[in-house]
Amino acid sequence: MTDVLTSELVECGRDFHRRGWSLGTSSNYSAVTGREPLRLLMTGSGYDKGRLQKEQFVMVDEGARALHGGGPKPSAEAELHTVLARHGAGAVLHTHSVAATVLSEHFLKAGGLRIAGYEMLKGLAGITTHESEAWIEIYPNTQDIAALAKVIDGRMRDAGNPLRHGFLMAGHGLYTWGESIAAARRQVEVLEFLFEVVTQKRLLCGSF
Amino acid sequence: MTDVLTSELVECGRDFHRRGWSLGTSSNYSAVTGREPLRLLMTGSGYDKGRLQKEQFVMVDEGARALHGGGPKPSAEAELHTVLARHGAGAVLHTHSVAATVLSEHFLKAGGLRIAGYEMLKGLAGITTHESEAWIEIYPNTQDIAALAKVIDGRMRDAGNPLRHGFLMAGHGLYTWGESIAAARRQVEVLEFLFEVVTQKRLLCGSF
Amino acid sequence: MTDVLTSELVECGRDFHRRGWSLGTSSNYSAVTGREPLRLLMTGSGYDKGRLQKEQFVMVDEGARALHGGGPKPSAEAELHTVLARHGAGAVLHTHSVAATVLSEHFLKAGGLRIAGYEMLKGLAGITTHESEAWIEIYPNTQDIAALAKVIDGRMRDAGNPLRHGFLMAGHGLYTWGESIAAARRQVEVLEFLFEVVTQKRLLCGSF
Amino acid sequence: MTDVLTSELVECGRDFHRRGWSLGTSSNYSAVTGREPLRLLMTGSGYDKGRLQKEQFVMVDEGARALHGGGPKPSAEAELHTVLARHGAGAVLHTHSVAATVLSEHFLKAGGLRIAGYEMLKGLAGITTHESEAWIEIYPNTQDIAALAKVIDGRMRDAGNPLRHGFLMAGHGLYTWGESIAAARRQVEVLEFLFEVVTQKRLLCGSF
Repeated sequence: MTDVLTSELVECGRDFHRRGWSLGTSSNYSAVTGREPLRLLMTGSGYDKGRLQKEQFVMVDEGARALHGGGPKPSAEAELHTVLARHGAGAVLHTHSVAATVLSEHFLKAGGLRIAGYEMLKGLAGITTHESEAWIEIYPNTQDIAALAKVIDGRMRDAGNPLRHGFLMAGHGLYTWGESIAAARRQVEVLEFLFEVVTQKRLLCGSF
Repeated sequence: MTDVLTSELVECGRDFHRRGWSLGTSSNYSAVTGREPLRLLMTGSGYDKGRLQKEQFVMVDEGARALHGGGPKPSAEAELHTVLARHGAGAVLHTHSVAATVLSEHFLKAGGLRIAGYEMLKGLAGITTHESEAWIEIYPNTQDIAALAKVIDGRMRDAGNPLRHGFLMAGHGLYTWGESIAAARRQVEVLEFLFEVVTQKRLLCGSF
Repeated sequence: MTDVLTSELVECGRDFHRRGWSLGTSSNYSAVTGREPLRLLMTGSGYDKGRLQKEQFVMVDEGARALHGGGPKPSAEAELHTVLARHGAGAVLHTHSVAATVLSEHFLKAGGLRIAGYEMLKGLAGITTHESEAWIEIYPNTQDIAALAKVIDGRMRDAGNPLRHGFLMAGHGLYTWGESIAAARRQVEVLEFLFEVVTQKRLLCGSF
Repeated sequence: MTDVLTSELVECGRDFHRRGWSLGTSSNYSAVTGREPLRLLMTGSGYDKGRLQKEQFVMVDEGARALHGGGPKPSAEAELHTVLARHGAGAVLHTHSVAATVLSEHFLKAGGLRIAGYEMLKGLAGITTHESEAWIEIYPNTQDIAALAKVIDGRMRDAGNPLRHGFLMAGHGLYTWGESIAAARRQVEVLEFLFEVVTQKRLLCGSF
């Protein structure tokens, strides 16, 4: 199974790199391979996402530690992946697009970006009509991933108003997830599409 | 013949997904395989259009119902395809581009988008000079596809001023068609090109 | 030799279609295969430029007439190719990009587009320093290709100030040429790049 | 080893050409193959970067002269590569994107472009936090490469404030480098991404 998941993440990287969403060795991707105990297959730190090799992946435990010594180092952001996996995600994809970078910086003060009324919203898990809105929360960028992981953990546990769909780190990029790699990839495509729609609308019509 | 049509629709999906016109499992495509009774080969609901597999297609009847049980579910919008097929389309392509999404939202109040004076208009069926204009009607987005299908049926029957070239659903995307998949694909390329021209002109010159 | 030229034009089409410069069966390309008498290998009218087949090309004489019956029809614009070939071009490439369409419409009144001071200008035949400028003439779009061909013929014969580099047809696209297909393709890439630079500069800085 | 480096540079060219960063035979790339004496493998002048062939590379000495007669001519800018190699670069990549062309022209008077606060900055060699800034110096474009090479040499020797990350030539493009081709390519991707972010931010928010 790990081989299949590796191939799917390699293919994600190839496509996202081509689109400019994972340039300059940015981004990291993971998929859950076991639940008890939690195990994630994850891209190692610092590799070109357009040409990932099998040996550039690392298996991590629920504490985001590498299971085997001597291999690739997990990304500094691995803890964000394990938090999301503990709350049920089967795969977590983190990307860095131009649109996400600029919008997340601009809307940081507002705490998030509201996107409403588009058919494409129906591609997000749990949305079944375009008469919906997605609220994509934005967090300040930070080097203290442990602290952010705690915030995200709290937001996922918030039964009345849980974090949904994904979140942005300001000037940094998008985290989203799904039950499978295909589902998480669909979320990436939908959200990146919507970020471009928001951008284009602002340019054409003068308002967000 | 079905195999050839499937391959052509798979190739449409690969190209449209690459261009960002069919992201996030959006879009649906169909081709007529028989006329009496009407039969359409159609993409099933919810698949990644960049990597369509043969088994992700479904054969539907003139009522947009799957002919065989146990296979993929037809898209909720299948009825729009069968209406257009009944009026002579050999293939129907529905795409979701950023430009179509934003322009269709902006011009909904005007009821449509007028595009005039461009050479590329000659790529639309029935237009033979650039001294022409295309009027692309825009309908409010809806979850009530049956009602919209009736509106489209009426517009196709309007002998004095029939719906031509294609139509937009606001905040949603483009429907266009042709006598063959190649002809419908040409229509998609021409219309998406013109949507980008309209967008770029507005950005450069301040007016649509 | 014809086979090699065909392959090179097929590859031009594949790349230009991918970039959005030859969508919707627009564009036409040619290469000279003989000089006495003049013979051009040319794309037939109405084919998808992203997937050209060998049998979609037509050989034409100095009057832009097909040499052999029963094959593809030469493009309505074939006469523009033969005029340029008579003045020495070994290959002529005609493309339809969004930037060329919008800029040619905007600058038609000025009669042309002046592009100065960019390093990329050195990619145009005969320019050896960036302290140069290119003046790209713009003609009204027309269905009377014979009349336009005469105008172009006159401009090529104008010894004191001949047409150079290429020209635009308003709302239509670019014609450029070179001694070989590779040279003409370099001209297309350079000019399309510069059209995007002019567009981007206007958006960023408010002036062309 | 030369074969491996050639393949890596061919692949750089294919990707950069596809992205529009090396169109029209622009750009040049090099990699160090020996240090004592200094030897660089470099793209010859005037080739299509999307389809580089092995025989289109040239080996140059520390004075940027071709080691062997009869082969491709080194680029006029070869001396910029050897200067950077003497200061430790293992590979130098020079690209011509639309964003770099327009921004470098606009910010020439300011002497450079300051980019601050983005996560992607961490992809630049020596930067470990997004709370950093990169100052990308901009030089007037020139045909006197020998003079510019001296300026660059002086800036690299400036122990208190050495040139870092890369530099722009106004209206021309980017030079960047790294210890390996992969590292230099990462720098290109990071800087081109950031140029697009700066451009997009200006369009969306009205300020750089």
